Amino acid sequence: MTTALEKTLFDELEQLVLIDPHTHINPLSAPSETLADILGYHYYTELAHSAGLEKSQIEEEGLDPKTKVGRLIEKLADLDNTIQVSWLLEICREFFDFQDDRITTDNWEALYDTAQQKFAQEGWEQHVLQHSKLEKVFLTNDFDDPLEGFDTNVYIPCLRTDDLVFHFLKKSVRNRLNEASGIEVGDATTFREAIGKLFSKFVEKNVKACAISIPPSFSPAKVDAGAAAAVIKRTIRGQRLTSAEQEMLSSFVFWTIAEHCQEHKLPFDLMIGVNRRVYESGVYQGQDLFDKRVSLIQYQQLFNAFPDVTFPISVLGSTSNQELVSYAWIFPNVVTNGHWWYSNIPTYIELDTRSRLEAVPRNKQVGYYSDMYKLEFALPKFRMYRQTLARVLASDFVEKRGWSEEQALSLGKQVLRGNVESIFKV
Amino acid sequence: MTTALEKTLFDELEQLVLIDPHTHINPLSAPSETLADILGYHYYTELAHSAGLEKSQIEEEGLDPKTKVGRLIEKLADLDNTIQVSWLLEICREFFDFQDDRITTDNWEALYDTAQQKFAQEGWEQHVLQHSKLEKVFLTNDFDDPLEGFDTNVYIPCLRTDDLVFHFLKKSVRNRLNEASGIEVGDATTFREAIGKLFSKFVEKNVKACAISIPPSFSPAKVDAGAAAAVIKRTIRGQRLTSAEQEMLSSFVFWTIAEHCQEHKLPFDLMIGVNRRVYESGVYQGQDLFDKRVSLIQYQQLFNAFPDVTFPISVLGSTSNQELVSYAWIFPNVVTNGHWWYSNIPTYIELDTRSRLEAVPRNKQVGYYSDMYKLEFALPKFRMYRQTLARVLASDFVEKRGWSEEQALSLGKQVLRGNVESIFKV
Amino acid sequence: MTTALEKTLFDELEQLVLIDPHTHINPLSAPSETLADILGYHYYTELAHSAGLEKSQIEEEGLDPKTKVGRLIEKLADLDNTIQVSWLLEICREFFDFQDDRITTDNWEALYDTAQQKFAQEGWEQHVLQHSKLEKVFLTNDFDDPLEGFDTNVYIPCLRTDDLVFHFLKKSVRNRLNEASGIEVGDATTFREAIGKLFSKFVEKNVKACAISIPPSFSPAKVDAGAAAAVIKRTIRGQRLTSAEQEMLSSFVFWTIAEHCQEHKLPFDLMIGVNRRVYESGVYQGQDLFDKRVSLIQYQQLFNAFPDVTFPISVLGSTSNQELVSYAWIFPNVVTNGHWWYSNIPTYIELDTRSRLEAVPRNKQVGYYSDMYKLEFALPKFRMYRQTLARVLASDFVEKRGWSEEQALSLGKQVLRGNVESIFKV
Repeated sequence: MTTALEKTLFDELEQLVLIDPHTHINPLSAPSETLADILGYHYYTELAHSAGLEKSQIEEEGLDPKTKVGRLIEKLADLDNTIQVSWLLEICREFFDFQDDRITTDNWEALYDTAQQKFAQEGWEQHVLQHSKLEKVFLTNDFDDPLEGFDTNVYIPCLRTDDLVFHFLKKSVRNRLNEASGIEVGDATTFREAIGKLFSKFVEKNVKACAISIPPSFSPAKVDAGAAAAVIKRTIRGQRLTSAEQEMLSSFVFWTIAEHCQEHKLPFDLMIGVNRRVYESGVYQGQDLFDKRVSLIQYQQLFNAFPDVTFPISVLGSTSNQELVSYAWIFPNVVTNGHWWYSNIPTYIELDTRSRLEAVPRNKQVGYYSDMYKLEFALPKFRMYRQTLARVLASDFVEKRGWSEEQALSLGKQVLRGNVESIFKV
Repeated sequence: MTTALEKTLFDELEQLVLIDPHTHINPLSAPSETLADILGYHYYTELAHSAGLEKSQIEEEGLDPKTKVGRLIEKLADLDNTIQVSWLLEICREFFDFQDDRITTDNWEALYDTAQQKFAQEGWEQHVLQHSKLEKVFLTNDFDDPLEGFDTNVYIPCLRTDDLVFHFLKKSVRNRLNEASGIEVGDATTFREAIGKLFSKFVEKNVKACAISIPPSFSPAKVDAGAAAAVIKRTIRGQRLTSAEQEMLSSFVFWTIAEHCQEHKLPFDLMIGVNRRVYESGVYQGQDLFDKRVSLIQYQQLFNAFPDVTFPISVLGSTSNQELVSYAWIFPNVVTNGHWWYSNIPTYIELDTRSRLEAVPRNKQVGYYSDMYKLEFALPKFRMYRQTLARVLASDFVEKRGWSEEQALSLGKQVLRGNVESIFKV
Repeated sequence: MTTALEKTLFDELEQLVLIDPHTHINPLSAPSETLADILGYHYYTELAHSAGLEKSQIEEEGLDPKTKVGRLIEKLADLDNTIQVSWLLEICREFFDFQDDRITTDNWEALYDTAQQKFAQEGWEQHVLQHSKLEKVFLTNDFDDPLEGFDTNVYIPCLRTDDLVFHFLKKSVRNRLNEASGIEVGDATTFREAIGKLFSKFVEKNVKACAISIPPSFSPAKVDAGAAAAVIKRTIRGQRLTSAEQEMLSSFVFWTIAEHCQEHKLPFDLMIGVNRRVYESGVYQGQDLFDKRVSLIQYQQLFNAFPDVTFPISVLGSTSNQELVSYAWIFPNVVTNGHWWYSNIPTYIELDTRSRLEAVPRNKQVGYYSDMYKLEFALPKFRMYRQTLARVLASDFVEKRGWSEEQALSLGKQVLRGNVESIFKV
């Protein structure tokens, strides 16, 4: 049952203005433009596809937004149990005056049209930010993102490095690096210089973190300088690498990035455990899954080698949470970071939150990030987290441990916002 | 605490008439004949043995049923905390007029005798089915089961394929296949024909699913036709296979069965994760355990290769549940199926149910099956599930998400029964 | 919410006088001597270090106790959410008349001084034992511990075997064995004799268990006698061993110890899953972590080979708990043992306790041990467990299964104390 105490704590937490420490927002087009931007979020397209909607119905070329929404709505009844659809309802209620308890084939068109009017209103972006109590929003930027045309104090750059670490074999990626850095990479030395250039540029643009998502099999290791030089040369020359060499290449790039994080005192967000393209015929962004047989012991060498780099860590599987709790409890440079993707549902958020609050120093926990692509999603996602957090604070701290409401709230605010400020220096 | 809402939902769910989608019932002898059939369920024999009863006491040759029950009862006090013993009590109360709160060395003989009278009553089987609200019951049939002598509309055949996939090296299994199919298997072509014959025969007999239990190490892969032909030939000739060849043989048989599931539009139940004969001196059926280091990524190729085959999946360890939730959320052909064996206790049922209801489309979840060997077990096992389901619906849907009781009940009924009908087309 | 029933059960459980079946108490100096003994517990030093306190601040040579406490207190505010700090507060309230709700830089000196007065009181050790309701306390003894100078009926010896199994390659360990056993170990035969001598000596001193902590990679196997003889010889000669030979050596030593446990009918506590020195720059005892990719299947051969040896098993990760439950449910010689280290927090204790009480015979569960280094910690740690146990008994047994309070209490007392007596024969 929801207790009065839980409700009080939730209401207080709802007042807190936030900094969202990880999103995929495009700062040049932050809010949605049609309801298709919202229903087109991969959660809805992949769930609708999983429930039986043909991919071709969703990704048909030239499909207009309203038709796309109409098709997805037809499958919504099969998904209405999911927490993701509860986010959708919450968005429609908070932003589009929706009042029914379900979105159906009967009422969606009116909803679509109301939403269109809202999107077209002057100042919609500001309205969404304010109504969602969002002060700042971290981005996910390609290494060659120009970072132009927006206020980097509100939309804070974060250097995403997956392409460099895992796709440097691709000529297109190497060309992008050459162009973005202004350096013709020919060997390990020029490679390092090019990475340095990227960091300098991002630092000028107020970057506050570096980030990467990592498959379960990866285990970063320091690569011997000679071996690194050789493998970089072979890569540049377009020679085929063995899988051991490819791993060495990834490790070398990863290590080089970690060194630059150290130099620039940037936290390095590790999002550990995703296998890409597991379901190859899946919808866009709905193809990735995981292998739970991954351990943070794979990062032992890294955590020891970079004591001055803070690693905010997200794990894809809840079965990895206890390792994360334990590593954050022992390693000064390991920080727990949010509830990622397949773990971002209340069942797992609650378990993971309880254990973190019980065993990780309170200054080392980033409670939540939205991971959103469109601004409207911050509100329901953070609300889901705030409800869970309020429940855990009420039960585990006030009721069981005799804390005052103020003490519990102060802990809640620290993991929701305070630590984002102190850990990312924002 | 059990809330009034939970109680209301439970009472409603208790009214629902069920189709049990996985059991080991022998349709020619479905109910128990003595209390030894009930106390002889491996849960009681293995727990009693684990608690200290010698295997020889339980499996002595020529042991009469009443003596066997008496011996097991002596150990019952050490097991009365287990949920399995709570099923036993529930059976005795519901079917044998038992009214004490424990079964003891003092009261068991009266119970035994009452049970004997009940079993001997005319129409006991119908009584158990009706009182348990069971309309149809899926079976587990050997591939050479004659499927004769019972109503396949009530006792629905399910083709069990463990022997074919994992024991085709045994001459006895190959002989059984030859006989059951009427085809002398000599190569890959005749093997495929023989499998085809089995499927045709089962389809004639109203088969509604194919099923298999799988060790944690297995990862099915498509085998090259030439290699398959060679390995089948070596097998038929009785030649020794390397362990790589044995794996190839299992993969080839498995793949062939999946192809026939596709042809006949039969769901293929995968029960993933059991190691057989881990405790070799254990009692009958009480020797199997698991290795939690298993991942659904091992089925990536299979799920991609057979988009038209529905795979209802059971996992043995609760640590595999989040993978199951995530794979069912992404792959259209992956369905969650019940709470299997070592995960079939309320602690894990509750966690697993909560996460499934939060993240898997509602039309892709088979809530529960009894896995029973004797009819009397459906009632307490389904009741345990209905209690947990009622709790989750009350808490997560009505209280936290504001659903009406009707909406919550409708979700409960769908996972309990509706999806069994739609997924198994029964 | 804490219900009245929960409170009643807790109050009753609090009355129970205990035998603590695993600690690191030094019986010659069992209680703390200064508050630095309490704040110096690795939980506080490692958490303070994790939260940002330099190791040099904590482990400075010649640091006096009061200064050390003062430095740790400065970091306490960052850790006050942890359950470990709640133990500290409870100790201060129960033993040192502390009444504030936090220990701060303002009030710690008065606390320090009060504690000093208490420690200096006559009979402090007896007071702590009585106030904590501790009747007997198991120790952790090096194999060459003289076991002199204390009452082995209160402080019960336990033979710890990590050094022998995992460090027999070290000359210092071999010398210690020669000295402790009075046998010059030169081959497998004399090795076995030396181990026999240790056991005889420990048995004379009232030893009640053998114990070992084990890395996740270890899988004990019976070693062929010839191979064992060879590897022991090479070891004694100081020759370098391959990693396969090292594993064989560890397996041989382990197996030999298990054989002696069998001979002397001693339980063999296995504490499975710890990797040592993962964070090499960590504080003393704050360097160990785990790799959750471990399975009890690694112990299949052991459990089958020693049916007469009881193995009380602790797992480091909660993700291993279901395996433990299942193995204890099947193997007569596997017993669940407490909540170890990284799993010793209420979130995991609750989950693990619920599943154990639901599926493991009640006579095969050792509920809890303190793992303490100083006597004062038994009270808050056991209290944490008793609270969780009371909650689970109230909810799962009285409310959901209709047990009487007496029946639930009797189960609670059995796992808290009764089984310690019967399993360790104490």
